[in-house]
This record gives sequence, C-alpha cells and structure tokens, in this order.
Amino acid sequence: MDNRSGRFGHSGLLTDLYELTMAAGYVETHFDARATFELFVRNLPLRRNYLVAAGLEQALDFLEHVCFAADEIAYLRAHPLFQRIGRRFFDYLAGFRFSGDVWAMPEGTVFFPGEPLLRVTAPIADAQIVETCLLATLNFQTMIASKAARVVTAARGHSVIEFGTRRAHGIESGVLAARAAYIGGCQGTSNVMAGRRFGIPIFGTQAHSWIMAHESEEEAFRQFLDIYPHHAVLLVDTYDVHGAVEKIIAMGRRPRAVRLDSGDLAADSIWVRRRLDEAGWRDVEVFASGDLDEDRIAELLANGARIDGFGVGTALATSSDAPALGVIYKLVELERGGAVHNAAKFSEAKVTYPGRKQVFRVTGAGGKSAEDIIALEEEQFPGTEALLLPVMRGGKHILPATDLEEARRRCLSGLQRLPESVADLRAPLVLAGYPVRYSARLEELLGQVRRRVERAARI
Amino acid sequence: MDNRSGRFGHSGLLTDLYELTMAAGYVETHFDARATFELFVRNLPLRRNYLVAAGLEQALDFLEHVCFAADEIAYLRAHPLFQRIGRRFFDYLAGFRFSGDVWAMPEGTVFFPGEPLLRVTAPIADAQIVETCLLATLNFQTMIASKAARVVTAARGHSVIEFGTRRAHGIESGVLAARAAYIGGCQGTSNVMAGRRFGIPIFGTQAHSWIMAHESEEEAFRQFLDIYPHHAVLLVDTYDVHGAVEKIIAMGRRPRAVRLDSGDLAADSIWVRRRLDEAGWRDVEVFASGDLDEDRIAELLANGARIDGFGVGTALATSSDAPALGVIYKLVELERGGAVHNAAKFSEAKVTYPGRKQVFRVTGAGGKSAEDIIALEEEQFPGTEALLLPVMRGGKHILPATDLEEARRRCLSGLQRLPESVADLRAPLVLAGYPVRYSARLEELLGQVRRRVERAARI
Repeated sequence: MDNRSGRFGHSGLLTDLYELTMAAGYVETHFDARATFELFVRNLPLRRNYLVAAGLEQALDFLEHVCFAADEIAYLRAHPLFQRIGRRFFDYLAGFRFSGDVWAMPEGTVFFPGEPLLRVTAPIADAQIVETCLLATLNFQTMIASKAARVVTAARGHSVIEFGTRRAHGIESGVLAARAAYIGGCQGTSNVMAGRRFGIPIFGTQAHSWIMAHESEEEAFRQFLDIYPHHAVLLVDTYDVHGAVEKIIAMGRRPRAVRLDSGDLAADSIWVRRRLDEAGWRDVEVFASGDLDEDRIAELLANGARIDGFGVGTALATSSDAPALGVIYKLVELERGGAVHNAAKFSEAKVTYPGRKQVFRVTGAGGKSAEDIIALEEEQFPGTEALLLPVMRGGKHILPATDLEEARRRCLSGLQRLPESVADLRAPLVLAGYPVRYSARLEELLGQVRRRVERAARI
Repeated sequence: MDNRSGRFGHSGLLTDLYELTMAAGYVETHFDARATFELFVRNLPLRRNYLVAAGLEQALDFLEHVCFAADEIAYLRAHPLFQRIGRRFFDYLAGFRFSGDVWAMPEGTVFFPGEPLLRVTAPIADAQIVETCLLATLNFQTMIASKAARVVTAARGHSVIEFGTRRAHGIESGVLAARAAYIGGCQGTSNVMAGRRFGIPIFGTQAHSWIMAHESEEEAFRQFLDIYPHHAVLLVDTYDVHGAVEKIIAMGRRPRAVRLDSGDLAADSIWVRRRLDEAGWRDVEVFASGDLDEDRIAELLANGARIDGFGVGTALATSSDAPALGVIYKLVELERGGAVHNAAKFSEAKVTYPGRKQVFRVTGAGGKSAEDIIALEEEQFPGTEALLLPVMRGGKHILPATDLEEARRRCLSGLQRLPESVADLRAPLVLAGYPVRYSARLEELLGQVRRRVERAARI
C-alpha cells in the first residue's frame, strides 16, 4: 500500500465501474485517441450567484499518483463483467500512470456556469478512468468554498471559524471542508488535522461537557482559566447566560472571550457586551455559535448583535442549503488518426460547446469584473485576464502546490471585484446574473458541429 | 505513517481543537474520572420517520488505532494555546491508546430520536478526544443508510444501485456512502473501491462520452456489444431514445439492458419496453437514472413506468434533502473518586436524560415493532429485544467486523417490522411518530438530577 495514500490510497479503483468498462473497450478495440474533457457546471445551485474554485491540489495529487495494485487488477479480472477482456487491458492497468495535460483555474478563482474550471487532455481511456475522482474532489471543495464565501460576506468583516467536522460527510470530508472554507475566506477551523496538514489557523473553546463534569460552573471556569490564562474562551450558556457571565466577572478573571451557543444570540450578546464593558473588559470578545449560516449571521448583525466572531458548523461543512454541486465532465475534442473532431452534445435542454476553451475576464469601471468571455483556447482578448493556467504536463505538476493564503486572497479579491448585485446575498438570481458570453468563433464552431451531428443522425 | 491508515491516518489530530484543550485540562488538573457519553439524535430530520444505524465498523476501527505521532505532538506543543501546558499532557498523548468500553446498535438497526446508538465509557480525556471522529463517522453513514432505506422503499422491489460518488463530499465519502447505501438496502454501487473493499456488488454501463467518441451511435453500440456480449447495458438517450432503440433492434444484437438517463422516463420506458417485447427481447431490462430520488421513483412507478432498476446518485450519496444529521455526544455519567454522578443538561428546549441507557424494542401484533422503551442499562423488560450490544472492551473489538450482508438484512427486516404509518414515505410526521418512551426509573432519575442541579444553581 502506498504511503502517500488515502484510506483508499490513490487507487485507480476509486472510480465508477463504467469508467473501467469504457477504458477496457478503448484498449481492447485499439481506439487510439487523445481526448479533451472539460469540467464545468451548467447551472448555479439555488441561492448562489457565483462559485469559488477549490480542490485542485487534491485533484492533481490524485492524478500524479493514481495506479492499480496487483491485487486490485486481480479483483477486476475475477469479475464476471471482465471475463472476456484480454490481457492487453490488464497490462494497461498494471502500467497505468496518468500521462495527460491539465489546465485549470487556480484555487480561489471566482467563476460562473459554463466556464471550464479544469480541462484534461489525455489518452481517452486515461481521461475516463480519472473522471470520477476529479469530479468528487472538485465538486466538493468548490461547493464548500462557494458557501464559505457567502457566510464570510454576511459576517461583514467579523471573523468566521469553520466548526463543522462532526457533521461533515465523514472524517476526510471534514478535513477538506476546513481547507475549502479557508479558501472561501474563513479565518480558521476547529479541525486540528486541517491545521497541521494545511497550516490553517485552529480555534477551540470548551464544550458543555467540561462545565457539567465539574462540581460547579464557577469551578469549571476557574480551572480552565488557570490552565489557559491568555486563551480561555468560556462557554456561558450551559445553564443560564446571565448567571455565568456574572460569575466570571465576580471572579475577576478576564477570559479571552465568552461563547454563546444557544438562546437569543442577539439579545444575549448585547447584554453580555454591556456587562463586560461595565466591568472594564472591553477587549474580552463575544463569540457565537449554534446552527449559524449566512442568513442567521446577517439577521443577527441587522438586529444589532454585538458579536466579534462566528463559529459556523453544519451549514459550512455540508453546504446544507445546496449540498451537491453539478460539476460535470464533458468530452469536447477528440484527436484520432491525425484528425481533430470537436464533440458536442445536443439534447433538449443540454448543449455542450465543443473545443478546448479558455475563459477571459474583462475588467470594467472601478476595477470591477464586468464580463467573462468563454472562447477557444487560441483566441486573444487583449486587456482581459485568462483564468485557466497550465498546471500539469505529461502527468506531472508544473506549478507548485497551492499556496492556501494566496488562494484565500484570490477569493477575497475576486469577491470584492464582483458587481454589487452579484455579490449581494439576497440578490434575485434572474436579474443579477453576472454576464458570461461565448465568443463568436465558439458559437460558429457549435453551429458547424450541430449541422454535422444532424447530418449524421439522418444517415 | 500508519499503513492501516486513511489519508489522514488514525491520527488523534482528527478532532476539534476543543477536545484537546479539554483533554489537556483534565490531564493537567489530575481530573481522574471515568465518563460515559452517549450518541443520539434529538429530532428526526425533515421527511424522515426513522433512522438506520451505520458506520460502526469505521468508528471502532478508528477507536482501536487512534494515536498521536511524535511530529503531531510537536505541532501541538508549538501552538501558542498549549504554551503553558506541561510535559504530563504531551506524555499522555505520546502513550495515547483508546482504552474505553463501547456498546452500540449493530449496523442496519432501525432506531429513533432519543435512543443512544452508541455509548462510550472511558477516562474522560480519552472519551473527549474521540468525540469528533465518532460523530463524523456515525452521523454520515447513518444519514446515508437512512436515505437509502427510503429510496429502496419507494422502488418497491425494483433494484436500486448507488451511483453518486462524483457528487459525494470527497472521494472517501463516496466509498463510504456506497457502503451505507448498501446497508440501507441498495443492491449495489458503481463505486469500484466499495466493491473491492467491502464486497458490495458493482454495476456499470457506459457514458455519453463513449457514444460521442465513436463515428456513429450504431458503431458505439456494436463495439460495446462485441466486448461485453453478455453484460452490455447500452445508453440510449445521447441523441434520441427511439432512434437508438430502433438501431439496436435492427442490429439484432441483444444487450443485457438499456439505460435511460434523461427525458420523460415514464413515457420512454413504456415505449422502450413495448419495442423490446415486440422484438422478442422480454429479458432485456430497462434501467433508469438521472436525478432520481424516492419521490421521482414513486412518481414513475405510479405513472406506470416499466423500469427494472434505478441508478440513484446525488440524492443518495449526499442525502440531499437532509444533508446533515444531528447525532450528538452527551455526558450522561461520571465516576470520580468512587462516586457515580449522573449528568443531565437542562436548557429551554434541550433535556438530556442521565445514566447509562439501553433501548428495549417491544414486538406487537403480527411481528411488528410496537414500541421502544429507553431505560437504564440494568433494567429488565422480558420479551423485548435489547438493541445495544457490547462491541468493545478496554479498547479492543469484542465482536467481529460488521457482516454487511447481515447488516443489510437487519435493515430490511427492521423496515418490514415498522408500523405502516411509520414506513410510509408520505406519512405526516406529527401523526405517524413511532412510539418511544422513557422508563419510569429513568424519568425518576431525571427528576433527581434536575432537583440537584437546581439546588446547585441557587448556591
């Protein structure tokens, strides 16, 4: 087993079975083609005006290390589905290393539907095998970073700490949610592994169990203050918020902060702030948690809550109001026998534009982003910013690993550059959509492919 | 690095920081106590009448192997928060092995709010450190198994295959969602790693990209049939369902099944079934996928859809209508200095019953489950079934690993034993709640603890 590996390694088995049945098909029929697939979303989830790219580092790490162990190949070989598949395919798996080229938006990039956030060009079987893992990785972290951006926007400069590991979809999910939330603008996480592995600031207070395990609330506070004289954040809602705060003030021991986790957070925070100020403890902060999300935070601040920082759990770590993102992986070009075929799919509601694409962002008045143009890779739009960069060539990273601080800054700067109507959390989507258009050449190419497909369908 | 490990190992850092600040507090203040924590949910998520326990195997695996590596301890030691923490705590971490006892409901058990699905008794610092990982693991798989049970119920005996890895919250999440969905009654998954690791049947067809990569749809079908003469499931909606099915029939090559992935699944399936039957291909199955969930499946079957099996993705792998489960971890008992203290928490809406508990299920007429009684561990209710079993003693498994087939049968049998009003997917929750009561002794103990806490609050 591979030491760099996850619980399930960088195994090529981390895929949907149909990727392997198709790969076997391509290998067995000597279908030698180089395919380009693009990842994008067709539509924004409800209550989202934009998305924030995240997960690229984990996606590239998978591509660089994915392989099939002998026992894994034996497992496939023994499966009835593959009983007629010859040695050629299993030899291919034994030697499998992803050898493709990848272009992608750097993590933290703000982007929109239709825009490829990643593009893979590789032998078609290779490109197919890695599809599932690329999607799972990028769908998840992009979804969380996009949610975090909303929560951070709602907090209007107050800090937001990601607290959701216990409600994340498993333990790895919790660690990566913390990472994505940081890219989306959070100040830190409660997840210690995310701190250790990614250098994200970690935050922690105390639980109700600490209070309940001690003889009295006062004893629980005193012990914690003795151990953490400069860092104690005391949880004041186990029994009664007013009583707890009065006990702390009466003790004359200044904590770093107090935490409210239930009840009327607006009213309690106003009362607590006043009492702390009266005690001369203006620097003792009020921290709030308990089923918070961007709506609750906006409401609390609108109601005059005196809260310095927010701990956000479930809503952030699961993107609970939009818990899945529809990033898809579509074939856009095929090079076979020296010819290049542009692929497109036409069905009632679904059009996929063919060709290798680039996204060009136009800056308008006041430095705001004004429009995006989705165009063919080789087109030029002087004065715009090209969002996709080359990140892997021949299966090897050609950029250093993501600098999380830089990704976070990129996100925050991208959010600042959004037109106000798009950044607004309450904006009605239909009216406020950010302008994205396809280039004239891309529309023309789509028309050509459409006519070719229609001709073929008549035959 | 540990070979048995996940991407993030069985590291003790897979926890919220406050677990470690509290653990340090207990160790530093020589707070020698043995604590009992119970995991339960206070309320059912929307649209759920019951839950299905899952994730125990991964939870116990974590408990059995969790430890802190030297570099992880060095990371904590260097953190400003721990600057005043002495050697005693870091030595404790260096020697850390979970040494507690655990009782739990076997995977696949149908259960209800208030009922502990797992109970931990351990030195309080140990019990605190493992909280986060236990919650993340059990919350997630229980949520997915519970969703799967609904989807499988809606399918009324037609097979349901889990297809959601690409929309799962990361790649580990996809593998474990497949496992939990199988416990909840699915027949299999598209996730190959879940097949390899857990012995779950795997299923796969072909993607639109296979069709688009070939010169023509007919050529794409023919090649696939050549390679998989007995197993080919052909995707017929890339361009036009009727055209695709007519091509297959005209070729005279019988696939195992055809798959519909878009469009009017009810109408198309009825048409496809008729054409396949006319061709004498009664054994060729019709498989459907594409944004399915229990509501869509029930609607399709109500509208006469002729579908033999359903592939369900996003809704299953993310439990998208209820993407978080509120399993919590509450202190219920503390043994310290020879005395046993029962812990309870009182706040406006939240009562936690004290004491080590057991759940007794009463069987009524026709073998149906009639009522559950939550009682103290030592109580006896002859003729009932005790749902919690001892699973770990002194940090070691005392039961073999979960037999997934048995867990799946336990779930399906538990669902069959549910009163119809509870099993019904459309049942209004308020009217249909399954009866769960607390024993008289437990109510009495709660009263005692409540009076003690009130006295203490007045002091």
